[in-house]
Amino acid sequence: MVPGVSTDGSTTSFTPLVVLELASDTKQEAIAWLLSRIRDPQRTGGAELLVEQLGPGDGGSEKENPNLFLVGATWDRLLSGAEEVGLFKEFSDGSMRGFTCANKHNFKHFEGDGDSFLTMAECQYIIKHELDTLRAKDETHVPGHPRAKLYPGKSIIRRLQSKGILIQVFPLHEKEELKRLSYAWYQKMKLSFQPLDDIRHYYGEGQALYFGFLEYFTFALVPLAMIGVPYYLFDWENYDKYVVFAVFNLVWCTVILELWKRCSTSLAYSWGTLSRKKAFEEPRPGFHGVLGFNPVTGREEPLYSNTKRQLRIYLVSLPFVLLCLYLSLYVMMIYFLMEGWALSVHDEEPTFWTGILLFIPSVIYAVVIEIMNLVYRYAAEFLTEWENHRLESSYQNHLVLKVLVFNFFNCFASLFYIAFVMQDMVLLRQSLATLLITSQILNQVMEAFLPYWLQRRRNKKMMRKVQKRKAMADAELPLAEQVRLEADMSTYLGTFDDYLELFLLFGYVSLFSCVYPLAAVLVVLNNITEVYSDAFKMCHVFKRPFSEPAANIGVWQLAFEAMSVIAVVTNCSLIGMSPQVKAYFPESEMQLILWTVAIEHGLLAFKFILSFIIPDVPKHIQIKLSRLEFESLEALKKKKMLEASELTKGIQ
Amino acid sequence: MVPGVSTDGSTTSFTPLVVLELASDTKQEAIAWLLSRIRDPQRTGGAELLVEQLGPGDGGSEKENPNLFLVGATWDRLLSGAEEVGLFKEFSDGSMRGFTCANKHNFKHFEGDGDSFLTMAECQYIIKHELDTLRAKDETHVPGHPRAKLYPGKSIIRRLQSKGILIQVFPLHEKEELKRLSYAWYQKMKLSFQPLDDIRHYYGEGQALYFGFLEYFTFALVPLAMIGVPYYLFDWENYDKYVVFAVFNLVWCTVILELWKRCSTSLAYSWGTLSRKKAFEEPRPGFHGVLGFNPVTGREEPLYSNTKRQLRIYLVSLPFVLLCLYLSLYVMMIYFLMEGWALSVHDEEPTFWTGILLFIPSVIYAVVIEIMNLVYRYAAEFLTEWENHRLESSYQNHLVLKVLVFNFFNCFASLFYIAFVMQDMVLLRQSLATLLITSQILNQVMEAFLPYWLQRRRNKKMMRKVQKRKAMADAELPLAEQVRLEADMSTYLGTFDDYLELFLLFGYVSLFSCVYPLAAVLVVLNNITEVYSDAFKMCHVFKRPFSEPAANIGVWQLAFEAMSVIAVVTNCSLIGMSPQVKAYFPESEMQLILWTVAIEHGLLAFKFILSFIIPDVPKHIQIKLSRLEFESLEALKKKKMLEASELTKGIQ
Repeated sequence: MVPGVSTDGSTTSFTPLVVLELASDTKQEAIAWLLSRIRDPQRTGGAELLVEQLGPGDGGSEKENPNLFLVGATWDRLLSGAEEVGLFKEFSDGSMRGFTCANKHNFKHFEGDGDSFLTMAECQYIIKHELDTLRAKDETHVPGHPRAKLYPGKSIIRRLQSKGILIQVFPLHEKEELKRLSYAWYQKMKLSFQPLDDIRHYYGEGQALYFGFLEYFTFALVPLAMIGVPYYLFDWENYDKYVVFAVFNLVWCTVILELWKRCSTSLAYSWGTLSRKKAFEEPRPGFHGVLGFNPVTGREEPLYSNTKRQLRIYLVSLPFVLLCLYLSLYVMMIYFLMEGWALSVHDEEPTFWTGILLFIPSVIYAVVIEIMNLVYRYAAEFLTEWENHRLESSYQNHLVLKVLVFNFFNCFASLFYIAFVMQDMVLLRQSLATLLITSQILNQVMEAFLPYWLQRRRNKKMMRKVQKRKAMADAELPLAEQVRLEADMSTYLGTFDDYLELFLLFGYVSLFSCVYPLAAVLVVLNNITEVYSDAFKMCHVFKRPFSEPAANIGVWQLAFEAMSVIAVVTNCSLIGMSPQVKAYFPESEMQLILWTVAIEHGLLAFKFILSFIIPDVPKHIQIKLSRLEFESLEALKKKKMLEASELTKGIQ
Repeated sequence: MVPGVSTDGSTTSFTPLVVLELASDTKQEAIAWLLSRIRDPQRTGGAELLVEQLGPGDGGSEKENPNLFLVGATWDRLLSGAEEVGLFKEFSDGSMRGFTCANKHNFKHFEGDGDSFLTMAECQYIIKHELDTLRAKDETHVPGHPRAKLYPGKSIIRRLQSKGILIQVFPLHEKEELKRLSYAWYQKMKLSFQPLDDIRHYYGEGQALYFGFLEYFTFALVPLAMIGVPYYLFDWENYDKYVVFAVFNLVWCTVILELWKRCSTSLAYSWGTLSRKKAFEEPRPGFHGVLGFNPVTGREEPLYSNTKRQLRIYLVSLPFVLLCLYLSLYVMMIYFLMEGWALSVHDEEPTFWTGILLFIPSVIYAVVIEIMNLVYRYAAEFLTEWENHRLESSYQNHLVLKVLVFNFFNCFASLFYIAFVMQDMVLLRQSLATLLITSQILNQVMEAFLPYWLQRRRNKKMMRKVQKRKAMADAELPLAEQVRLEADMSTYLGTFDDYLELFLLFGYVSLFSCVYPLAAVLVVLNNITEVYSDAFKMCHVFKRPFSEPAANIGVWQLAFEAMSVIAVVTNCSLIGMSPQVKAYFPESEMQLILWTVAIEHGLLAFKFILSFIIPDVPKHIQIKLSRLEFESLEALKKKKMLEASELTKGIQ
């Protein structure tokens, strides 16, 4: 990619990286003001970026929004931006260091002017950061929009977004690169590791870590799946060996979660996000409150009392979540009634159709669960928005917690009920299988194929429109159409749902592993298709997302670890309840329970010790990190020595 | 304290801060070399400190070691040293910032030349740091001692120590200050909070945190003690109410440990150790290995393979510890035999003497436990030394772990046996009381009174000697004698034993709280005397220790938390075993156990959630910390902006 020369050439004089879409009723003076602020040099408080209006599309109808703007930047601007956002790049000695323009030539792969040094995803991230930190000076409101109030230091883009003037900001896809990536990722037929570095190049670290985790998780389950198959085939009811399987499973889960930390650290180090310092977090766009002074920055910004937020959380959100859990319990009881009814019908007069009827309650229940999850999700988002969190990260954590608890309950409550109240292992196995398979199929359909089908219809419509006007020979769309097409694509809402799915699958594998060892096999199969469908939807269904620098999978690590702790409890109880184990303690059930509890506590203690012993950061990265730290300490010392000796010289 | 003017005036021309004692057979050339290295200016690799030999004592006999050296420094040197070690001091705006000589006048309490700005403890810490970082240049060995090998970059002091040439380095007491401190601390009669800031001034942060924790712990136990007394007086056998007490106890333990974190953060912040960066850790003096290059620093230093160390740990130390635990179990069984024998004698023919006989096995056992702990301690130190850890911190952690496990086992194994194998609650209560009281009395004697008595004898001897020669009117000793006296005092070995004692006391309170609510009362009483005896021994028995910067109580926080987790398990089982609770489940014992286990799991989950919800850093300190971070980010940004604008000007 060469800067200043467009890939298309017809409409822009620079490489467009990011698109801004303003509402079609935006006042002209607001547009002019915004563009000038974006173009202004940095020393006068501008962003010093290149920006241009997108010409009318060839399918130009009056319905089209004319207010689409392409944003780009010169290479020098991008490099100084890279320094500002604190990008880490590989240094000539192989270590990762914070990029600085002053010694740019000492970085690996920095050649000539430095084009192709930054990936397009990085450039887009830099532009987003520059736009986000574009701050109001002495404007009191957006010109032409008196209701969009501004105050000194307020992020302009955030205010425009919260007032609905700015509809969306999104980075553009890179057709050639995307083609190459999608080939390497899922189109070539032979099985191979995913091109994580390429994914990171194109989508950023957050995405790449998700796919890395998905791959790691799949491979980690293979041993379980391989052991599970013979268990399934030969020893369906032999609990003695299930004990061995369950213990192995529990230890294995702990080990893989610990090892993943090391893996993710290695990845994050090689991608330069491990040591990167977080910038100061700005309030999220939707945050509102009374204007005041932030005690940390001293800047004017809305303040909202923490006590009020706590009250909203504990007096409204918490009871609501509990109510939903109760509702979900109620639905579950209805499911068991239906199940009982179907069974009684089948028992009265068993035919092929009543045999199928037996499965219908489970299928209906699985569908209802999916619907409830969806509805609850909207409620959770609304509530968390209403709690008015200042930071995006805090908003996300509260949302994740709400959704996680409900989903966990929804998915596993019936299984817990069957296992521990009804104590019916055959039904448990059957329900587990039905739930697992139904939810997998539903997920794949809802997640990838449905959006793909919608997107394809849209694509075709656009193509037809264009071809009607121009007799186009090649299948490539002109830039204006391409941008409009991408603007209409669905927005990728982050890795939340993908992780949630993995989390629930992990639950199916670990919670009841000693009853249904085949779960691991099903999950491995699901994950393999998941890689393909996720890759596919990232490349073809969604707008390109902005890359998010991430050093680990964050709160999900905790969630998975919590699940593995719960798994110890459930598996131990299941084993304790099995008739084969009970046979060892023919006289006293008390002895059996005491032993079960003791073993469970032992396993839990072992888990904690294990997670303590296995270091989170691999040795070689530890050494590299401490070397960097040591060097910076030494440099500081040398600087001070120099200053001191200069001082003494001055005195002499 | 005014620099350059000695408090005594007779022997030194500067305020002596630290004493170096070399072996009496040290070669003169080695001494001359060492002194010149200490005096050399920093730019030629010296420490730029003041050093002088101590004159012969007035009690001068030929047995006295002549090689005692007093070390001091000029104020300028101390200030630049404060910057080097990264001391945090209060800034004029009330926040804590890293001290720099460049803007020294902006720090609070910096007046004139800055004397009295640094406390004596800080000065001594700085001098220790400067001595420790005095490195060999091209010497291959210590002059006159060819066996004391050196290589470029090796710390000279550490080599001298490991070769036995340097016997000890210790800071001097400050008579006046000490008098004032000891008055405020324990001599005035009215009860009050400890003068933590003064303690920190005199002994440094590590000590002050210990005393802070001791005080906090005592106050935190007061509510438990107050609830415990009526339980003891009125409801000796009423388990229903014990359940309430135990649950309160468990929640309370969690809460106080969490709140302590906030407390210790506040203290560490106000003392400037919270944000202080740790310097790169040097290998400990006793560490040996083949010379090689450290992968982090690139310096030549001994290397020792990590695998070898792991082998030593898992193949020798671990089995040894297990063997000791087995031995301890064996001793315990003998104790129970003795106990049984005494009981049978008493039952046969109960007299006053047989009544006393009943207590004898417990007392003997308590004494044997103390002796075993002592012996094991030496073995653990030897083994950990032999494991050859590179870092002092890693050595300490391994030592703490070994000693902790054994002490825990030794102290509580018999109680566990009585509680869960014999299920004899009366005996449990009795043993608990005996153990607690015996170990408290033993501890106080061994820890404070015995050393004090020894030290007093030494003091008197020295006084008598001096008075024989000089007809001294005042009771004050001249400097030379004072130094020699302090050199002979016992060395304070750190807070390890003090924390260990608190840890075991915490165990007595929390593990079996529902059986013996009076434990909290006893521990509170013990802690009050502990404060006094610890304060007393710090002021009068031991050499002054070097101050250790510490931001928290380190591994002990973890140990206390582990104890509180174990306490949940023991208390729940004790309650489950009580006849009153059993009466609620007359039909099935299974139901009872299941309920007990369920409640236990619930409590554990609640504990974890609680420790998750309570933030570790208080809000106002959080704000101060983020403000500092924000300011440094902003400063960096501004600096870069300036550079950029200068660059553009240069181009124009």
